[in-house]
Amino acid sequence: MATGSSGSKRTRRRRARPRVAVLRVGHRVGRDPRLTTHLALAARALGAERMYLEPADPALTERVAALARGWGGAFVVDGVDDWRRVVRSFPGRVVHLTMYGEPLARALPRLRGSDRLLLVVGGAKVPPDLYRLAHANVAVGAQPHSEVAAVAIVLDRLLGGPDRARFPGARRRVVPQARGKKVVTLRSGSR
Amino acid sequence: MATGSSGSKRTRRRRARPRVAVLRVGHRVGRDPRLTTHLALAARALGAERMYLEPADPALTERVAALARGWGGAFVVDGVDDWRRVVRSFPGRVVHLTMYGEPLARALPRLRGSDRLLLVVGGAKVPPDLYRLAHANVAVGAQPHSEVAAVAIVLDRLLGGPDRARFPGARRRVVPQARGKKVVTLRSGSR
Repeated sequence: MATGSSGSKRTRRRRARPRVAVLRVGHRVGRDPRLTTHLALAARALGAERMYLEPADPALTERVAALARGWGGAFVVDGVDDWRRVVRSFPGRVVHLTMYGEPLARALPRLRGSDRLLLVVGGAKVPPDLYRLAHANVAVGAQPHSEVAAVAIVLDRLLGGPDRARFPGARRRVVPQARGKKVVTLRSGSR
Repeated sequence: MATGSSGSKRTRRRRARPRVAVLRVGHRVGRDPRLTTHLALAARALGAERMYLEPADPALTERVAALARGWGGAFVVDGVDDWRRVVRSFPGRVVHLTMYGEPLARALPRLRGSDRLLLVVGGAKVPPDLYRLAHANVAVGAQPHSEVAAVAIVLDRLLGGPDRARFPGARRRVVPQARGKKVVTLRSGSR
C-alpha cells in the first residue's frame, strides 16, 4: 500500500512538469549566429519544446532542424516577426528572464505549478514593454551573465536535467564513455 | 543541543563546497568574443573563482575585469599559452565537460567531494589528448548544446546557485523588482 501510494505520487509529480517554450527577442541575424545557436541547442537539450526567434533567421532554423534530424526529438526554431503577438497569445505563463527581476529561488514554485511556460530572453537591447507584458520578471542571479546560462539553469531546475527519453527518432546516439567518444548509428525512426 | 549539532552540520556542508575554476581551450580570438564572454560571465555569476583562457585574449580579460570592478567579486580571466600545463599542474580534480562523457548525475557526488575542481571546455575542435589528461569526462546530457549551458548547470548544481554574497566590493547592485530595473550605486569598496 505504502509503495503504491509513493508510486502514484511520483507519477503525479512527473506529469506536473510544465511544457516549456523559449522566445528570443532581438536576435541580430548575421551577428549573433553562434550565440543564438547555443541558446537553441541548450533549450532543446534541456527539454524545451520549441524556440520562437525574433526576427526570423531561416538559416539558423534549418541548421537546428538538421541537427535535430540526426539527434532526435521534435524541437523546432520558429521565426516570428512580432514577438508581442507571441507573448500575448501564449496559452500559459510568460516569464521574462532578466538580472533585474525577482530571484529564481522565490519564483520557482510558481513556475513549477504552471502547465505551460514561455521563457523570454532579450538580446543586447531589451524592449522596455517586455517587463510589463510578461507575467513575471525573474533573475537567475542579479549579476550580468548569459541568456544561454539563464535558460539552461531554469530548464534544469524545472525539468530535472538532461533525459535521453526526450529524443525519439534519433539516427545516432552517444554511448557515454569515461574516455573518448562512442556514437552508434541507429535505424531511422528507432528510439 | 540538537540545534547546535544541526548548525555545525550546515557549516560543514557549506565549507565542503569545492573551489572551482574554468579552463576554456581553443578560444578563437576575434571570432568567439561574445560566446567566450558569456562563458566567463556565467562562470563568474555562478561562483567560479577564475577562468583560464587559451589562447590569451587581453581585450576579453580587460572587458571582464571592467565589469567585475563595477559588479564586485574577485573573478579574473587569465590568458594562458599552454593549456596542458594548466591541466597538469592544477591542484585538484580536472573535469572535461563533453557530451561524450559519463552522465553528470553519476559523476556529481565525486565532484562534490573535491576540494578544488577545474572544469575544462573545448571550442569547436577539442584536442584529443584532453580526454586522457582530464581525471574525468562528464556529460551534461549526451546531446550537442553549449559549453555555456554545461558550465552553468554544473556550477549551479555544485555550488547551490546564484549568491549575492560572492560579490564584495561592488560599486553597484541590483535591487530585485517584479517590474522594471532598479540599480543602486554603492560607495566603492562597500559590500
